[in-house]
Amino acid sequence: MLPISLLTDFGLTDTYVGQMKAAILRGAPTAVLVDLTHAVPAQDVRGGAFLLWSAVEAFPEGSVHLAVVDPGVGSTRRAVAARARRGDVLVGPDNGLLVPALEQLGGLAAAVELTEPAYWGPRKSRTFHGRDLFAPVVGHLASGVPLEKLGRALHHLESPFSFPPPREEDGCPVGEVLHVDTYGNLITNLPGSLLPARFRVHLGSTVISDAPHAHYQVVASGEPLSLVGSAGLLEVSVRDGSAAAVLCVGRGARVHIEPV
Amino acid sequence: MLPISLLTDFGLTDTYVGQMKAAILRGAPTAVLVDLTHAVPAQDVRGGAFLLWSAVEAFPEGSVHLAVVDPGVGSTRRAVAARARRGDVLVGPDNGLLVPALEQLGGLAAAVELTEPAYWGPRKSRTFHGRDLFAPVVGHLASGVPLEKLGRALHHLESPFSFPPPREEDGCPVGEVLHVDTYGNLITNLPGSLLPARFRVHLGSTVISDAPHAHYQVVASGEPLSLVGSAGLLEVSVRDGSAAAVLCVGRGARVHIEPV
Amino acid sequence: MLPISLLTDFGLTDTYVGQMKAAILRGAPTAVLVDLTHAVPAQDVRGGAFLLWSAVEAFPEGSVHLAVVDPGVGSTRRAVAARARRGDVLVGPDNGLLVPALEQLGGLAAAVELTEPAYWGPRKSRTFHGRDLFAPVVGHLASGVPLEKLGRALHHLESPFSFPPPREEDGCPVGEVLHVDTYGNLITNLPGSLLPARFRVHLGSTVISDAPHAHYQVVASGEPLSLVGSAGLLEVSVRDGSAAAVLCVGRGARVHIEPV
Repeated sequence: MLPISLLTDFGLTDTYVGQMKAAILRGAPTAVLVDLTHAVPAQDVRGGAFLLWSAVEAFPEGSVHLAVVDPGVGSTRRAVAARARRGDVLVGPDNGLLVPALEQLGGLAAAVELTEPAYWGPRKSRTFHGRDLFAPVVGHLASGVPLEKLGRALHHLESPFSFPPPREEDGCPVGEVLHVDTYGNLITNLPGSLLPARFRVHLGSTVISDAPHAHYQVVASGEPLSLVGSAGLLEVSVRDGSAAAVLCVGRGARVHIEPV
Repeated sequence: MLPISLLTDFGLTDTYVGQMKAAILRGAPTAVLVDLTHAVPAQDVRGGAFLLWSAVEAFPEGSVHLAVVDPGVGSTRRAVAARARRGDVLVGPDNGLLVPALEQLGGLAAAVELTEPAYWGPRKSRTFHGRDLFAPVVGHLASGVPLEKLGRALHHLESPFSFPPPREEDGCPVGEVLHVDTYGNLITNLPGSLLPARFRVHLGSTVISDAPHAHYQVVASGEPLSLVGSAGLLEVSVRDGSAAAVLCVGRGARVHIEPV
Repeated sequence: MLPISLLTDFGLTDTYVGQMKAAILRGAPTAVLVDLTHAVPAQDVRGGAFLLWSAVEAFPEGSVHLAVVDPGVGSTRRAVAARARRGDVLVGPDNGLLVPALEQLGGLAAAVELTEPAYWGPRKSRTFHGRDLFAPVVGHLASGVPLEKLGRALHHLESPFSFPPPREEDGCPVGEVLHVDTYGNLITNLPGSLLPARFRVHLGSTVISDAPHAHYQVVASGEPLSLVGSAGLLEVSVRDGSAAAVLCVGRGARVHIEPV
């Protein structure tokens, strides 16, 4: 049995995540459920898409990923399941949330709109498709129901946003901060493959020399550094501190790479 | 193996939840554990009772539910296990925490006071019956020990509080806010079955027209709306925002329904 | 299959914990994973060591415990796995994090530095050994690979800090606050075995009489009390409140016991 990953903006103070898991387990009682995070900011589809993108590669090929950040629940937005070329199946609202993760897993192999009510749950709320529609579908998928039986075939998913691509200015890579993590690390859109061997990082009024750094402890406590992090992207950190707080920088801030 | 749900006020910053799970797994090594929430406000038995009530129906019939919000731990309050008519077993302190969930599952079928120390754990702290008494009992239940062996039969549980029932004033349903969820949604005590086809909601100085709304996106961003939510109760929300923050309203606030 | 416990400073807002679990499940698909906590303050090795120490005894003998609070990741600090005399295996950085838990489980029986790359994962980040090194090793351990195959034998672990031992002044036990828990309870370094039958607790300008108390409800709401808590250590609490907030006391505060 392959694991099922879960990512939502439901938080952990209510029982919504637990109710969704219960609905999966009704269909797949021995499923192994792995929380990615339930702390996506409420209705932040784009933030959720980044976090989902960051995590799926670590899972065994063929895993199921259930993601629900769904401000359009109950409206005409479609509910979908999509198989990636790597074999994983992603389930969630068709609002862009799944698209970067799908690309990360090789791109779209097949998709359906979840139009077949035989695979939904017994309750039918307007506001909680996580429990009443997506989770039962995931339970059926995990217990062997083929994707194609879940509804009407789709040839592409909605893609209302994309992460800003790295640019080049005067021969220098230029990017921006995509995500601030729990440590205050600033994760940029600059993949390691675009970076020169040695460089300076310009970020607001801060200049970080001697990048990339080998690890956090090559600078003094409280000092900034920059290295390629666990997502394969350039990050800016402060040793034993928060780069976001110390450098007063957040999502969207411009990052300029100067080769040396 | 049916799932075991867990609800406490232990928080997630200490290891208390993990210790309790370890004690369950000693008795039932393959148990599937599902967290409902561990963020019940400290000692808020009534808040915990609402959250437990909201979640149990989603679980397969016959599940075990362990709930610990227990300001009287170590005192004369009883430790109990109770089977609901639906077949689920609820385990926890006899302080009212389990009662609304038990009613939701069809009412009390059988109960015992947990007086049989053969089913408790090896450690005997005064302050952590979650780990030392309730969890071992749950492990035994999950591995097949009948409820009746766990202790002395009880004919009813203590019921020191109840949720305020909906009222009627001049033919209009009147209720109150029972819970503010993680999104800031205001969940009332008014079930969908009591509501007229179309109505206005009065809540403090706010009047919400055109209720019930079909979904969140029928109003503009930042505007209030009202619909029957996933618990079957009327909720007041703000699209893309927190109704609690925008309307300055919390638990206990009066809600008045005007049919139109 | 014995459970695998997890303790980190990764937080729950990112997907780091989920990625680490995915990497374990690649090697041990049916492993039962139990979160101890992921809310260790960032880089607080000593705080993490206390929390790990507090939790391991509750697990079945022979469990695996993965702990990652790792400010030196990517530097020359060693990655280790250590078997305790009780049979449990602890995996993590060799920075002192594992040592108190190892002592709690009977002391060191065998240890290795994780030098054998055949047991690491396919990705090799500089900053996320939790996912890329420790988790794959744990997956191999859980699926039966002997500790000794994972790398070069070690005869002791680094032990750069220890918890302050209780002292005696004029025949009275004197200790300090080691940890403030989620309720605001002040957990001291004074084990129950060192305490007189009846005593007063002096803590800053507060004097608590009639200790140890039988349980929380023997004092009035809002009043302080003191008893031996679930870790076997003296704790100071405030009924229905936070001792840390009410008494304005935190980690390191001196506690003086006066026999009566």
